[in-house]
Amino acid sequence: MSMQSFTIPQHGGDIYTQEILWDFSINVNPLGPPSRVKAAVRQSAEHCVCYPDPHCRELTAAIAAYYHVEKEDILCGNGAADLLYQLVFALIPRHAIIPVPTFTEYAHALGAVKARITPVILTKENGFAITADAIKQQILIQKNKGNPPDILCLCNPNNPTGLPVSRADLLDLAEFTKKQSIIFLLDECFTDFLDTPGDYSLLSDLNAFPNLIILKAFTKIYGMPGLRLGFFLTKNHTVLEKIRAVRQPWSVSTPAQMAGVAALQEGAYLKKTRQIIAQGRIQLSQGLTSLGFLVYPSKANYLFFQDLRKDAKDAALYYACLSQKLLLRSCANYPGLDSSYYRVCIKTEPENTRLFYLLQEVLETASAMNR
Amino acid sequence: MSMQSFTIPQHGGDIYTQEILWDFSINVNPLGPPSRVKAAVRQSAEHCVCYPDPHCRELTAAIAAYYHVEKEDILCGNGAADLLYQLVFALIPRHAIIPVPTFTEYAHALGAVKARITPVILTKENGFAITADAIKQQILIQKNKGNPPDILCLCNPNNPTGLPVSRADLLDLAEFTKKQSIIFLLDECFTDFLDTPGDYSLLSDLNAFPNLIILKAFTKIYGMPGLRLGFFLTKNHTVLEKIRAVRQPWSVSTPAQMAGVAALQEGAYLKKTRQIIAQGRIQLSQGLTSLGFLVYPSKANYLFFQDLRKDAKDAALYYACLSQKLLLRSCANYPGLDSSYYRVCIKTEPENTRLFYLLQEVLETASAMNR
Repeated sequence: MSMQSFTIPQHGGDIYTQEILWDFSINVNPLGPPSRVKAAVRQSAEHCVCYPDPHCRELTAAIAAYYHVEKEDILCGNGAADLLYQLVFALIPRHAIIPVPTFTEYAHALGAVKARITPVILTKENGFAITADAIKQQILIQKNKGNPPDILCLCNPNNPTGLPVSRADLLDLAEFTKKQSIIFLLDECFTDFLDTPGDYSLLSDLNAFPNLIILKAFTKIYGMPGLRLGFFLTKNHTVLEKIRAVRQPWSVSTPAQMAGVAALQEGAYLKKTRQIIAQGRIQLSQGLTSLGFLVYPSKANYLFFQDLRKDAKDAALYYACLSQKLLLRSCANYPGLDSSYYRVCIKTEPENTRLFYLLQEVLETASAMNR
Repeated sequence: MSMQSFTIPQHGGDIYTQEILWDFSINVNPLGPPSRVKAAVRQSAEHCVCYPDPHCRELTAAIAAYYHVEKEDILCGNGAADLLYQLVFALIPRHAIIPVPTFTEYAHALGAVKARITPVILTKENGFAITADAIKQQILIQKNKGNPPDILCLCNPNNPTGLPVSRADLLDLAEFTKKQSIIFLLDECFTDFLDTPGDYSLLSDLNAFPNLIILKAFTKIYGMPGLRLGFFLTKNHTVLEKIRAVRQPWSVSTPAQMAGVAALQEGAYLKKTRQIIAQGRIQLSQGLTSLGFLVYPSKANYLFFQDLRKDAKDAALYYACLSQKLLLRSCANYPGLDSSYYRVCIKTEPENTRLFYLLQEVLETASAMNR
């Protein structure tokens, strides 16, 4: 199949290499950026003649008010991914604990400083669930081996599985890592898509855990990945100072700063987002299941599933969809997974329906060819 | 003076801490971004729902065509300053040679990896001129001491002095550093403002010097610092690969990529810019000289001068101007300079005239008070 000369990309959202009509590979709000955000970007054209505020003062104040945190606990960056690299260069961790499979940029960033990475392998047998016990156990094993970890990276809900870790488990991990002097990097970029974000967040617990660094982004929840805007929340101001020392003063562009301020003025948008995602999650889960896929119980704005057909490990589904200009996120490059696993984002009802029919057509064509 | 509780900022352009009506502290095109750039930013609002192209394909092709270089020799970043840090984390230089005073972010970025920095001190006696001989001599001294440098950072024309190094001297340095296996980082962010950029550039010599890395930015010449867009040009693809390994895939935002493509479609804008800067350079040089300042013969879009009055080293001029909501770039924080030195950017004729009268007023008031 000539299509297979196109390598599966490392990340979702590559609409630049191939012509794509239906991109279900990125976990971005299907409503697109709210109108206030787009208006802010348009307005920013008149402000780009000035350097952006290095301290993102207006944006930081807006974030502080919105999330009920202190301004001093916030550091904005050029997207959450940018902040990962800066954290790594600021702290130069020597040994990281990471549940796997998960977002691959943690390992990539840590690799830039040659940190050792010990995975906590999430198994198919356990439904890829993350438990505090498994992580604590692995930390103790490493410690007893004389290789104490200095950072734990946790994506909650996990990407690509969409499975969340409960607040009880998170508190357990925060307490444990605090005692062990381990930085706890908690990626909450997707929590705002959950039906009840507060049940899976440590946002209200910053004061108790100076080792806790929460990573959040505007990218996904406000549908604005093109603008690049993420931020850290932590009581650990030493870490924030170290990060400032390893980066340029003007990390966050003027359009991003203005868009962020505008986004936080939205209220109905987030409520509507959660409604659409909750409904779409049920719709798409049922649809994918009825097509014969093994669908995991994601609570996020994306679904993780396995193609159970015989030729699934050749990424047959990926390439067949690509020929229909439909882009899925192949999970082939996640450690611990293979090319029979996929992630799709949840979109609006008509888009989800379109995905269903496209997949149905792809499966029927494949089935007819194999007959 | 209560004003002095406000610390002199590390960089120009800080219009967020104090109310400023007249900002002469940043070296940005006084015409502001061309209309195509502003239109591109407005249009980008509709594209921010997608991730930016990690490879900046359209922008890179436009840069390649514009500067007559190969696409593969280009790497874009979130502003030139961002690329400095990435270069440093990619190469981890151990020992840098830097003419001083110059743009302070080279030393700051190198400090992030604890590189040793040997300054080539530019002296008042030599009018702060940079010569290839002085740099080569210092490199040899260091080599003979057993501390061979691995990188040379050169800003051309130099910032804050505006004095350029000729192509003959640049070629001499490129040849010498190539032989000595030293990376030659040549910052050409301001060359496009010179009357004859080709006389002070190595853009056409990339092929001859694989150790040469040219840094350029859209920031200054297209008056768009708020958008963050810079790029490296080099035949050293190994270095570019190393940089890609220490940063996120989506460094350059969609507004910046679209604005960059739009900027390179401008022609008359650059011609008009050079005319205005050339005229303003004469106007402002004469004006500042007539006010009693010692004005250095800058060829760039900014002027470097010394306040020769008795109380100059208290940054008296800086604070007096600030009280008139006029922001100069105090050069107090440049190694090798003190608070009697200033940099001002060249703007349009009416703005330059305004600067002249504001300074005249400030000097007269000071003179009356001292009487």
